Amino acid sequence: MTSAMLSTSLRLCKHISPSRHLHKSVAMASKVLTMETLNPHVKTMEYAVRGPIVARAGAIEKELKEGAKKPFDKVIRANIGDCHACGQPPITFLRQVVALCTYPPLLESSDFPADAKDRAERILAGCKGRSIGSYSDSAGVEVIRRDIASYIEKRDGGVKCDFNNVFMSTGASDGIKAILNLMISHSPATPTGVMIPIPQYPLYTATASEYGLHPVPYYLNESNKWGLDISELQRAIDAQRAHCTPRALVVINPGNPTGQVLSRENIEGVIKFAKKEKLFILADEVYQHNVYASGSSFFSFKKVLSELGPDYADLELASFMSTSKGYMGECGYRGGYCEVINMDPEVRGQMLKSLSAKLCPSVSGQAAMEVVVNPPRPDEPSYESFVKERDQVLGDLKLKGRLTTETLNSMEGMSCNEVMGAMYAFPQIHMPQKAIDEAKAKGTKPDTMYCFQLLEETGICVVSGSGFGQREGTYHFRMTILPTVDDLKSLLAKLKAFHVGFMARYK
Amino acid sequence: MTSAMLSTSLRLCKHISPSRHLHKSVAMASKVLTMETLNPHVKTMEYAVRGPIVARAGAIEKELKEGAKKPFDKVIRANIGDCHACGQPPITFLRQVVALCTYPPLLESSDFPADAKDRAERILAGCKGRSIGSYSDSAGVEVIRRDIASYIEKRDGGVKCDFNNVFMSTGASDGIKAILNLMISHSPATPTGVMIPIPQYPLYTATASEYGLHPVPYYLNESNKWGLDISELQRAIDAQRAHCTPRALVVINPGNPTGQVLSRENIEGVIKFAKKEKLFILADEVYQHNVYASGSSFFSFKKVLSELGPDYADLELASFMSTSKGYMGECGYRGGYCEVINMDPEVRGQMLKSLSAKLCPSVSGQAAMEVVVNPPRPDEPSYESFVKERDQVLGDLKLKGRLTTETLNSMEGMSCNEVMGAMYAFPQIHMPQKAIDEAKAKGTKPDTMYCFQLLEETGICVVSGSGFGQREGTYHFRMTILPTVDDLKSLLAKLKAFHVGFMARYK
Repeated sequence: MTSAMLSTSLRLCKHISPSRHLHKSVAMASKVLTMETLNPHVKTMEYAVRGPIVARAGAIEKELKEGAKKPFDKVIRANIGDCHACGQPPITFLRQVVALCTYPPLLESSDFPADAKDRAERILAGCKGRSIGSYSDSAGVEVIRRDIASYIEKRDGGVKCDFNNVFMSTGASDGIKAILNLMISHSPATPTGVMIPIPQYPLYTATASEYGLHPVPYYLNESNKWGLDISELQRAIDAQRAHCTPRALVVINPGNPTGQVLSRENIEGVIKFAKKEKLFILADEVYQHNVYASGSSFFSFKKVLSELGPDYADLELASFMSTSKGYMGECGYRGGYCEVINMDPEVRGQMLKSLSAKLCPSVSGQAAMEVVVNPPRPDEPSYESFVKERDQVLGDLKLKGRLTTETLNSMEGMSCNEVMGAMYAFPQIHMPQKAIDEAKAKGTKPDTMYCFQLLEETGICVVSGSGFGQREGTYHFRMTILPTVDDLKSLLAKLKAFHVGFMARYK
Repeated sequence: MTSAMLSTSLRLCKHISPSRHLHKSVAMASKVLTMETLNPHVKTMEYAVRGPIVARAGAIEKELKEGAKKPFDKVIRANIGDCHACGQPPITFLRQVVALCTYPPLLESSDFPADAKDRAERILAGCKGRSIGSYSDSAGVEVIRRDIASYIEKRDGGVKCDFNNVFMSTGASDGIKAILNLMISHSPATPTGVMIPIPQYPLYTATASEYGLHPVPYYLNESNKWGLDISELQRAIDAQRAHCTPRALVVINPGNPTGQVLSRENIEGVIKFAKKEKLFILADEVYQHNVYASGSSFFSFKKVLSELGPDYADLELASFMSTSKGYMGECGYRGGYCEVINMDPEVRGQMLKSLSAKLCPSVSGQAAMEVVVNPPRPDEPSYESFVKERDQVLGDLKLKGRLTTETLNSMEGMSCNEVMGAMYAFPQIHMPQKAIDEAKAKGTKPDTMYCFQLLEETGICVVSGSGFGQREGTYHFRMTILPTVDDLKSLLAKLKAFHVGFMARYK
């Protein structure tokens, strides 16, 4: 954390509790839990997607409410993949099913279609006492796990999926943390190394900090559509081997924050590398429904693995999925699952035991996941309206991705790869030296300075590239493509005007 | 874990994946994640409430489904406080509110009462994009946190509660873990000591194992209604001081698994002890609505603390609450909150940062929590039916608690304290020496042997005392009082017959 970030964060604390802060010097003496006794891993942990820039955005919203005058009327949050917050409407069928599970007297209502009632009955029959208010098995409701397994088989063209390998989680994050938790070594001399892409979704470095794992950063290739170079994987692991025992390789596909979609060939190369280096692959595939680039398709790591022949048949892999992304965008439900492949059965037993202490993931989130993997079929009454809603969301995202990259690339001193998938653009700012010098003088990072200025001048909230990681001497930010088409056009126009001014200011 | 437990657990793994297990010897050689490389804290962690006895209960259910002949028709799960699973119906108002939030077109329906619509509108107005599918702030939806603060103020007779001190969580468990996570020391020479009651809810020892915290066990006094003796707290901390830095004291009130309700005087003594020893109090108060004993009332640690005068005004305290217990019993929603008092503001900022990497707790769970803290008021249309439903549940629980202890105490070789609160009985089995010897010969614990025999002979699933902790040489089990009155009567009759047989067999 830079000192500028820290001071922002402290300002926030003061803002939250001014009265207590006044007494700090008196009270501190007798506190049990202080910055000195606090878990050091918590202190070092950073999570930019909800970091100081976002905290400042919240503070500005409060200032606006209290009547402060700003050069804008509202904060536009393009910092986080929060679809409904940006005005994307829920998929009707999903909400109907969850509402029926929530309040079963609605099963008698003629306002709900038969297929939604079928799904709800299916879920309720799998819940103890026919209530989503009872705990499920720690791995999730069995019938939902079975439907997830069917979905995976269909997605992968028939590659078998055993529902016993599917564990539901509180969002994908919780599943990712559950797998990484198994890998902690607790031996400071030989920490477990985890290969993490740079740029990355900051959950990975945050979890590495929290768990005392050793990050092994590898760079994605910005000059080749943010592709994944096997030679770079090799360089990265060789560079860190002396400092850790590398055991895991994280791949995010489609990419966050980069929006790339890996080719089948690229995935094959990654799998061969993991085999050679004895690495457990964590495939973050939460954007598997979000592919827009023509000629691109989503290939799951599992499918590619299964087609590489018997030499690869025992490679350990965990794949993660979520209700939060795709075209459903149900972030608030915190639904997710993890499929583990080739995990040692005793280890799997231990993982199940460790999950059991959390009791179970939210059952309403599990119900939402049921609809993600088992949406209306062509012979069902809701199919037509479902397809219309789905295609509207995905069509808009494709359009918005193109609009975003075109506009960004039209700006002098800015370049951006195509948004092939996911829901983010990660443009590079070709930062003027004068801006770099000013940031250095202020003790902040140039891209962070850019983002704070953008926020203060336009109300647009994006996250600086340093929160995700980037090559030394390059500067980026991540913005979502989620605002409605009209809002996005207005956002991009404001961004362009700001950027022109920024470049002129530091010329 | 005893070897018997382990072998049961391994049987379960085999059962889950026979085909993979066959290839184990071949595959093991090349695995990354094995029992040797697995996080050792995961290995040592135990969680009895969902442990081997419960796994066996699940296996028996499958055997019954497949036509196996048993001396019973179905498994009766009295192992976990899972209200709806035992047939307790949901509170209508809660489900109406959550259904309205889930599917807002229902706000137009005349089938839903105005007060339920008001609550739903209140929640939706607090959600970004008016959708429970958007992420909330990491600490929870602000309006719900404000309503929680009002609830706490009212509960405590006006003691002030700042909503900024309220953090919502995924069930109470997640909040408890978030606080304990802050206390990890990572310095093997001086681990943080956490005082844990024995018997305890096993989340605490499981989390201590997972986080490398040093448990400082203190015994509750079975001969005094499972009360909390201050002299025992002193003995316990003195005994462990050389092995750790004691920083936290866990109190569960009303008690789980013990069902005691602490007197106000007893709580005062605990607070004075915590002050003297510089301990952060974790008050697990999830059963605050479940008090049945005449003359007993729930006193929150916060209220008692606030009335002890200025010497105690800065004592650090975290109190936990849940949607899962009380009369709502909505376990599946995984709703919960934590109120922190007197936490160092910088530490609180760090906690907020660490919560932010989880994004947010399930928003539908937060909506359920809104109803827990803000149920229908006397002037509202749903009040009468709500009160009827609430009183039915609490009245039944009181009756079932009495029925359970009376029956248990009527058995020779069994004794049980009154179920003053919560939803469990924790009887002592006065174990015959012959049974103790047999268990020893079989490498299992006598109470575990008792519970396995009970399960195999009657289908009743309870958890042995060793899963919660108990004084050396005493043997208990925990059973819930949740089955319907008729089911509970039948359960108790079967249990009595089994117990008589068991005592005769080992006389």
